[in-house]
Amino acid sequence: MSNTTWTRHHVLSLADFTSDEYDIVLQTAASFREVLSRRTKKVPTLQGHVVANLFFEPSTRTRSSFELAAKRLSADTLNFSASTSSLTKGETILDTAKTYLALGTDLMVIRHQAAGVPHVIAAEMDRLNVQVGVLNAGDGQHEHPSQALLDLFTICTLLDFEHPQLKLLNGKKIAIVGDILHSRVARSNIWSLTASGAEVHLAGPPTLLPQLFADYGTDRAGSVFLHWTVEPALEKADFVMTLRLQKERMSQHLLPSLREYHQMYGITRDRLQLCQPEVKVMHPGPVNRGVEISSDLMDDPQFSLISQQVTNGVAIRMALLYLMGSGKA
Amino acid sequence: MSNTTWTRHHVLSLADFTSDEYDIVLQTAASFREVLSRRTKKVPTLQGHVVANLFFEPSTRTRSSFELAAKRLSADTLNFSASTSSLTKGETILDTAKTYLALGTDLMVIRHQAAGVPHVIAAEMDRLNVQVGVLNAGDGQHEHPSQALLDLFTICTLLDFEHPQLKLLNGKKIAIVGDILHSRVARSNIWSLTASGAEVHLAGPPTLLPQLFADYGTDRAGSVFLHWTVEPALEKADFVMTLRLQKERMSQHLLPSLREYHQMYGITRDRLQLCQPEVKVMHPGPVNRGVEISSDLMDDPQFSLISQQVTNGVAIRMALLYLMGSGKA
Amino acid sequence: MSNTTWTRHHVLSLADFTSDEYDIVLQTAASFREVLSRRTKKVPTLQGHVVANLFFEPSTRTRSSFELAAKRLSADTLNFSASTSSLTKGETILDTAKTYLALGTDLMVIRHQAAGVPHVIAAEMDRLNVQVGVLNAGDGQHEHPSQALLDLFTICTLLDFEHPQLKLLNGKKIAIVGDILHSRVARSNIWSLTASGAEVHLAGPPTLLPQLFADYGTDRAGSVFLHWTVEPALEKADFVMTLRLQKERMSQHLLPSLREYHQMYGITRDRLQLCQPEVKVMHPGPVNRGVEISSDLMDDPQFSLISQQVTNGVAIRMALLYLMGSGKA
Repeated sequence: MSNTTWTRHHVLSLADFTSDEYDIVLQTAASFREVLSRRTKKVPTLQGHVVANLFFEPSTRTRSSFELAAKRLSADTLNFSASTSSLTKGETILDTAKTYLALGTDLMVIRHQAAGVPHVIAAEMDRLNVQVGVLNAGDGQHEHPSQALLDLFTICTLLDFEHPQLKLLNGKKIAIVGDILHSRVARSNIWSLTASGAEVHLAGPPTLLPQLFADYGTDRAGSVFLHWTVEPALEKADFVMTLRLQKERMSQHLLPSLREYHQMYGITRDRLQLCQPEVKVMHPGPVNRGVEISSDLMDDPQFSLISQQVTNGVAIRMALLYLMGSGKA
Repeated sequence: MSNTTWTRHHVLSLADFTSDEYDIVLQTAASFREVLSRRTKKVPTLQGHVVANLFFEPSTRTRSSFELAAKRLSADTLNFSASTSSLTKGETILDTAKTYLALGTDLMVIRHQAAGVPHVIAAEMDRLNVQVGVLNAGDGQHEHPSQALLDLFTICTLLDFEHPQLKLLNGKKIAIVGDILHSRVARSNIWSLTASGAEVHLAGPPTLLPQLFADYGTDRAGSVFLHWTVEPALEKADFVMTLRLQKERMSQHLLPSLREYHQMYGITRDRLQLCQPEVKVMHPGPVNRGVEISSDLMDDPQFSLISQQVTNGVAIRMALLYLMGSGKA
Repeated sequence: MSNTTWTRHHVLSLADFTSDEYDIVLQTAASFREVLSRRTKKVPTLQGHVVANLFFEPSTRTRSSFELAAKRLSADTLNFSASTSSLTKGETILDTAKTYLALGTDLMVIRHQAAGVPHVIAAEMDRLNVQVGVLNAGDGQHEHPSQALLDLFTICTLLDFEHPQLKLLNGKKIAIVGDILHSRVARSNIWSLTASGAEVHLAGPPTLLPQLFADYGTDRAGSVFLHWTVEPALEKADFVMTLRLQKERMSQHLLPSLREYHQMYGITRDRLQLCQPEVKVMHPGPVNRGVEISSDLMDDPQFSLISQQVTNGVAIRMALLYLMGSGKA
């Protein structure tokens, strides 16, 4: 695994990721995918290192994915979740992070309901000059870089299994459908996909897709298009990314009903006829079956990449932890 | 450890366990008991494998027992508990299981408050042809096979420490006392004990012991008898299994009071006079002291096998995970 | 590491700790500090041993510290927390402890909101003659020995990095400021500091510092002084230990307001002028910034030892688990 040009201590956002960085992550993940196919799926890379999963917002799948990635690199893991935390005792978030630093943490994986928390912690680690890497595992409605990287890896390995690279996406049409406004997954995906030169078509109800998302395409290799109906986004699309619809949007009067949402924006076999014949459908999970995507389509391996996304998540997170951790003295 | 005839991918129920299967589990557990007596209580058998404990219903003792069994086989463990789960986010149980499959899980240990959930997940794993084993760690009021197997192991090792075998129970009289109706432990135990040729005597209040339990003896090596008072069940019994009484049965008007229950069905030194002189008392835990069993009896090593049940639980679960896991390519 | 004179199976209280015992713990922790500075921070000392963290009262920092200490000694860990426990099912605390014993636990780390629980469990382990060590990780308002030992280690290593010993504190003046009455940390610290021959000055509001604390100095190498204002305690002090103020003390009418508390007892740069020029400030965490200690002082490495306390906590807990565990056959 070549990581000669990897200099990033923290992975907080994809907004300023370079093409080289994308390619290093993709190639490193491809190497780890090979490890995961062995009978003994472990490497000693991070033995004796401590990865702290600081999940101020609860999560099952993402925490398990990071935990497994860390264990397969032979790291020790510490899990923190908000419910059992000192937060109720009045400690600041930065003090919690500094406690985990002082305990001996080498890498922090942070999820928080407020945008920017991982950045603030990363800035503090830099100020303290402690060489601890911070990975944003989802901050509010801002970014979720490891999700977008696993999505990218899933797409690229489909296009070239042995040599996944950013440039494979050049000229591809990718639809992102759903609640764009509140989605950190969408924001991170828009950065990676526009870096790749893809055409990114966003589709969603006007209440959930503000005009300002068009600006994401400015000065990027790829371009961004907005649609308030789903059909023009799907037309000749190579990949369709669906986003999780959170039920609390109903009570905020941003949506009429789940049924109506599915009627207008749900991905079904019929709607996929508009796409390329080889089109694939993705979802970051957990899925509301019959809302974002029809239930039978979700289970159809001809179209659905959902399982592969979860599997690739472990490889991508191993790659990120490896790259961030190997810089340490 | 010979497991040449072990072909079962899932352990969901003891209803169709064969004598050979019981004996393989007992002998394998006996080998692991030897491992547990060493200073370093680990074997590398499942190194690099992932055991996911999916506990949709919370549990302390059973989860810890499986977690320790997995760690002593050098597996990596992932813990999922309902409180921190995506379930609140609307994901189906099958989708949660498939997420853990895609993460790289090799063996799933599943507890759920609804009967049949582990079977449904196992059927899905088979349909997907993924060679992932599913172990039922308690499903509703249906079965709890690893508990019954550790009970069987505890009894058999008492009868022949070096060579625990099913046939040792042939002709023994075993009383099961308490809330039979709601007990998954009782159901699994009835299957294993009747397979062994033992005489199984069920005793409990009529509201908690319906007549249909007599049918469990049909076409089995052993036989089943029902009693609505405890004395005839205890008479000349070799082993007395007490069941946990759940306090919510009071509010359902199935029982008059805990005190009255203890008066009529509680196991005490006095009542044990009816049994064989060497009689032993068992309980799956956690115990309501002074309800199912008198407090002093519970702590008396001459009669109580309760601690040995917990200890043997780790050996039995190592055996089950080993047998299920070693079939994988 | 010499532990030839270490004979203590349990660490429950510092009331009867001998000078030799303090020195063995300090020297052992110093050796482990060296391990923690390596790239691979693990030793195989407790491989195959099981450390059970039984936290009946929730905690983040202390549980993570013990968990990490155990993992760095290569032990397997089991975590129990009250929320997911059988306690709600009516099991007694002793039965929970005996379940973990029967599962194969070698060392139990116990936190409970009631004083004396670890002692009761330790007495039961002795009665059963099982050679399982019990470590009190905080019991009610009684003691928190590992916290006081890490405080002692932090002070002693500052005075002599290579050879931390109890006698280094002889004649030093140490102020303990805050809610003495409700603090298990204060009680344990008073025992260790008076054993060392230090002058211990307690300061706090009269409602939180009863006269009976003067008795702690009886027949000890050091002496104890009480002050209801902070200034005389700080005068020429070498170390200032601040205690966490729990907000529920407000509703119990033991304190007027947090602001007033800070006004009268908060540690600030101004107040530190009263102390020795080299004075250091400590806090067991989590800190209420601007209450017990001014926010800028807490972050000033010239004065604050707070991070070092957390770091030293892992070394001290490794030392304690090592010393308690190595006695086992």
